[in-house]
Amino acid sequence: MGNVIENEINGIVSDILEDYNHGRAIDKIELFQQPDKDIIVDIIHKLLKIVYPGYFWDKSFRIYTANNNLSLLIEDVMYNLNKQITIALRFHQDWKDVDENELVEVAQRISVAFFKQIPRIREHLESDLEAAYDGDPAAYYKDEIILSYPGQLAITINRIAHELYLLEVPLIPRIMTEYAHSRTGIDIHPGATIGKYFFIDHGTGIVIGESTVIGEHVKIYQGVTLGALSTRGGQRLKSVKRHPTIEDNVTIYSGASILGGETVIGKNAVIGSNAFITKSIQEGTRVSIKNQELQFKYGKKEPIVKNDLEMDEAWYYTI
Amino acid sequence: MGNVIENEINGIVSDILEDYNHGRAIDKIELFQQPDKDIIVDIIHKLLKIVYPGYFWDKSFRIYTANNNLSLLIEDVMYNLNKQITIALRFHQDWKDVDENELVEVAQRISVAFFKQIPRIREHLESDLEAAYDGDPAAYYKDEIILSYPGQLAITINRIAHELYLLEVPLIPRIMTEYAHSRTGIDIHPGATIGKYFFIDHGTGIVIGESTVIGEHVKIYQGVTLGALSTRGGQRLKSVKRHPTIEDNVTIYSGASILGGETVIGKNAVIGSNAFITKSIQEGTRVSIKNQELQFKYGKKEPIVKNDLEMDEAWYYTI
Amino acid sequence: MGNVIENEINGIVSDILEDYNHGRAIDKIELFQQPDKDIIVDIIHKLLKIVYPGYFWDKSFRIYTANNNLSLLIEDVMYNLNKQITIALRFHQDWKDVDENELVEVAQRISVAFFKQIPRIREHLESDLEAAYDGDPAAYYKDEIILSYPGQLAITINRIAHELYLLEVPLIPRIMTEYAHSRTGIDIHPGATIGKYFFIDHGTGIVIGESTVIGEHVKIYQGVTLGALSTRGGQRLKSVKRHPTIEDNVTIYSGASILGGETVIGKNAVIGSNAFITKSIQEGTRVSIKNQELQFKYGKKEPIVKNDLEMDEAWYYTI
Repeated sequence: MGNVIENEINGIVSDILEDYNHGRAIDKIELFQQPDKDIIVDIIHKLLKIVYPGYFWDKSFRIYTANNNLSLLIEDVMYNLNKQITIALRFHQDWKDVDENELVEVAQRISVAFFKQIPRIREHLESDLEAAYDGDPAAYYKDEIILSYPGQLAITINRIAHELYLLEVPLIPRIMTEYAHSRTGIDIHPGATIGKYFFIDHGTGIVIGESTVIGEHVKIYQGVTLGALSTRGGQRLKSVKRHPTIEDNVTIYSGASILGGETVIGKNAVIGSNAFITKSIQEGTRVSIKNQELQFKYGKKEPIVKNDLEMDEAWYYTI
Repeated sequence: MGNVIENEINGIVSDILEDYNHGRAIDKIELFQQPDKDIIVDIIHKLLKIVYPGYFWDKSFRIYTANNNLSLLIEDVMYNLNKQITIALRFHQDWKDVDENELVEVAQRISVAFFKQIPRIREHLESDLEAAYDGDPAAYYKDEIILSYPGQLAITINRIAHELYLLEVPLIPRIMTEYAHSRTGIDIHPGATIGKYFFIDHGTGIVIGESTVIGEHVKIYQGVTLGALSTRGGQRLKSVKRHPTIEDNVTIYSGASILGGETVIGKNAVIGSNAFITKSIQEGTRVSIKNQELQFKYGKKEPIVKNDLEMDEAWYYTI
Repeated sequence: MGNVIENEINGIVSDILEDYNHGRAIDKIELFQQPDKDIIVDIIHKLLKIVYPGYFWDKSFRIYTANNNLSLLIEDVMYNLNKQITIALRFHQDWKDVDENELVEVAQRISVAFFKQIPRIREHLESDLEAAYDGDPAAYYKDEIILSYPGQLAITINRIAHELYLLEVPLIPRIMTEYAHSRTGIDIHPGATIGKYFFIDHGTGIVIGESTVIGEHVKIYQGVTLGALSTRGGQRLKSVKRHPTIEDNVTIYSGASILGGETVIGKNAVIGSNAFITKSIQEGTRVSIKNQELQFKYGKKEPIVKNDLEMDEAWYYTI
């Protein structure tokens, strides 16, 4: 490196090291370990191979000895997930101060309990796959859904993370669902309870809050929020039911918002695009917003004028 | 691993292996091979190097012998893409049962036909690049657009995938566009037909359906849906024109939805933000929604009160 | 490769090589080097380790000698970032034609100036972390926010990129923020000026334009646009203030759009969901859209009929 950098580098390094001594949350270096995000993402990818055998496997594993390789894979994930759970448990009120032996045993019980749910998770995923295939005329093959649909990926990771959430594992469930969010634009909190045959189409911009409860055969499109009302209460609202309940066979079209912990969308209801709902809707109701009033201006598009902003007309342009 | 896991691991593994014997779609292990998603993503990255030489190349390839390296790269992609196409073709009705030799030849013809389109694809991409640069005051350099704009990435992958879609390759086109969707939040079905000089700004939340037809010099902003009306028909609607036609020089601002297979937006029309359109719009029309009625409450923001939800006021908060 | 490919490959390769000789923007192979996107992403990840020591570090670095390892890391990032800056500067009007020695020195001065801002960046990030924790009842631990919240990632990368933007480094700031956009669905231009205690919840679909100015303690939810009015002026609007000013303590709920360079949202204002604002709002005002008119149809959902589109009813379905 040249002179300017050479002259400055030592000062810069010591200023930054100095800056770590403020005792702020961002300064925490060693207190105790955090779960490792990269390892958790790796665990997710291996769990995808376990729940969808034959779709994400190394091709060399496919023809022979799938079972042997699967056994090894499960043991590997069990080992690594258990290690991350052991680290994460220290964040939990109840396990913060227990001795290492007890912690290790608790973590192992949780890991085992989680793995025992895998067949039940897979049963749900099969139902989601059927719902996606039946509901989407653009789906040519079920394989396409497993290999590429963001909705299927998001619900798969959510069903996995939700089990860890129910087992009260700190941090890891949210790291998992935020990974799904990052990959798909679909933000489902691991606390959300979601029934079988759940289908998300397109999905970008969907937000489903922590205390949402969703029945079976529910269909949701892009940009839908199942959210809370005002959270100016912040931390004091923790563990209050803040998000809605969606009953069986409900369809919610793109851009609709359904808000509030006491809001219940009754069975078979259909919520139209962009509807904004803060009260319960009774069974079987089809809700839509009244036709927008549109205004039309005809004639040739004018050439671009000197002051191109044309303020009086331009109000409807967002860029 | 400790005692708890040791005691349980064998039972867990055999339960999961057992669970693979239900004959469901998710249980499919070996029947025939699926295309490999990781390899397809790798092919996309190599195709980016081919269509934008000089932007994504290893720097060592740049100065000398660019042509030699390019030849090798093209042969590599040809080989790997052809292999994936051969696997994917087995999903197609017409090629499910043909013998291996015929399949190999069909795949090769398709691979060759695809590569012959690359100069034409590049011609379109140059036009898209110009449209992005001309249309965006925040674009300082064309290089910036190629290296970082999500819209340019999405349309590039879409133009590639669309050629494979036209050649009736199963699975691969959708895996490609869903990769673009994951990276950009822009969901363009590989079936959509898109003219030259296409510009997407920001892009997150855009959905463009399978049978959409878009002319030249069209501009689309974030959150726009070019979609279908109700799809309660599901699989029965396959291959019906369900999505709109957008003619030349149309601009569609953020959050607008244009729906239905018979909806045509005529040349030079401008669709304002959040407009919801289900009927055709004639040439040159500027459409906007009438001003929203807003309500205003003035005065100092109250301190947070005990029951912070303040239900009667809170209806307009979505979180 | 088989016969079909063997027969065609040479012709295909030479056609593509031929196609690079049109002198278009996409044909540029060697003129001068572009910054390397992969290296810039790697730099971002290393800067995350520097600004959040203890959260993204290799575990082996944690217990001992954190300081030594940090020194090495800082030097490594300094070296690599400086190299990218040197390449990028050639795009800048002022440095296009200077001799290599001068360029190297300018790049070094910029690199040093950037690194000197790190303690100030970290001070801002600590404030953002507090705002996120205080504002979100679903946040159980601050660690969770650093490790998984897309809003924290987006603002972190933005604060880094904004310093490079102020130092007039071409290309790199935008590559950084578009990386954040890709990972989070949050599109903040590096030019945006953002005060302390900034909290983004959920975030997907947010767009914050180049000349936006945001005060302290501002909260923004998913789908919000802080945008420009019409940009039909394209390149001619460059460096005009096109985006709004948001003063201290403002909250903007999901889906709202605030547009225009002269629009100011006064202190303590609250902007409700989906509001579309193109004029200034005075201090302390709570703005909401009047209740949508909804229409309701009751009764059992009909069985799917022959012509399932049911055009007269279907208008409110977007898919």
